[in-house]
Amino acid sequence: MKLYEFARAPNPRRVRFFMAEKGIDLATIERPQIDIAAGENLSEAFRQKNPMGGVPVLELDDGTCISETMAICRYFEAIDPTPALLGSTALEQATIEMWNRRMEFNLLLPIAMAFRHTTGHFADRETVFPEYGKDSAENALKTLNFLDTHLAKQPFIAGKAFSVADITAVVSIDFARIIKFRPDAEQHANVLAWHTRISERAAASV
Amino acid sequence: MKLYEFARAPNPRRVRFFMAEKGIDLATIERPQIDIAAGENLSEAFRQKNPMGGVPVLELDDGTCISETMAICRYFEAIDPTPALLGSTALEQATIEMWNRRMEFNLLLPIAMAFRHTTGHFADRETVFPEYGKDSAENALKTLNFLDTHLAKQPFIAGKAFSVADITAVVSIDFARIIKFRPDAEQHANVLAWHTRISERAAASV
Repeated sequence: MKLYEFARAPNPRRVRFFMAEKGIDLATIERPQIDIAAGENLSEAFRQKNPMGGVPVLELDDGTCISETMAICRYFEAIDPTPALLGSTALEQATIEMWNRRMEFNLLLPIAMAFRHTTGHFADRETVFPEYGKDSAENALKTLNFLDTHLAKQPFIAGKAFSVADITAVVSIDFARIIKFRPDAEQHANVLAWHTRISERAAASV
Repeated sequence: MKLYEFARAPNPRRVRFFMAEKGIDLATIERPQIDIAAGENLSEAFRQKNPMGGVPVLELDDGTCISETMAICRYFEAIDPTPALLGSTALEQATIEMWNRRMEFNLLLPIAMAFRHTTGHFADRETVFPEYGKDSAENALKTLNFLDTHLAKQPFIAGKAFSVADITAVVSIDFARIIKFRPDAEQHANVLAWHTRISERAAASV
């Protein structure tokens, strides 16, 4: 298999983090770099692999392509359910799905919108709305405030066990440095303690 | 169990559609209506059930609350995997997750943004950016154009079988009528034929 990705983008990092937690040695996986800043993801050749033009894309040995971060994670979870990063029982699966989506829609998405609309990084291919970008950053901050209360009560985002929701949230927060959006030492002490713990995992560095 | 919802909102309809496809008789489920237009979802009492303030929320008999549409769907799929609406094999699960997310991020989300930012429906609780709303409607139209080509090649969004991706897409398109966004009889003939087929399913009307 091959993982088409762009090393410094957040969604490819989510997949690498997930794969490494599953015990997959990333050094053994071919990982062609698709420069999204230069628009390589929009080429006709790449759109054959993902018509939506996003990375990462997992290409299986028979040429089948799977795109969308969580679809790739789910593929690896289904092949090898241990350790469970998407939950085992019905309630665990639902709880992790709930928290992962909360992190996607209330943290990663507003951070991505803040990045795109305040920096104009993709102004060659999309209309930029700077005020919407600023508003998105404020929404991401509200989520960080909420998370700080939440993480005072439990060690991981989805409860007592590490899960994909922690991956999504840590990767989002790390990516947000690009727009100088960071947890505050006083206001987000619980977020920072959790962030330190998650970042110490070996898979956080792949 | 109880399903807290708001009957005319798209995400609660996705869950009802999914439950009905699973053979659950909706008439047997208590479904308290939370008027999101009036802001009932933002009350302290409701935020105890979902701190993010969204509907639907599934409350189990022991009081456990599951929010986020796909988390609720996943709960029902895990409890009773037949008929499989999220896939059975690893590749089916990944393919359906991929297509469902494409429909969420490239169809439902831009339609929701177009609705919120062109109508100002939630102007009492969020900043409204009308130009961003118009741009979002254009992005939703691009997805509809893409879908028409896609549905010329296969009967359902994710391939040969009906799945949650069809539910997400049909519900998104039906909701979009509120902003007069509709498939075009000539340009989107394949989308319209598929839409008619999906809408004839009994679960489409619950």
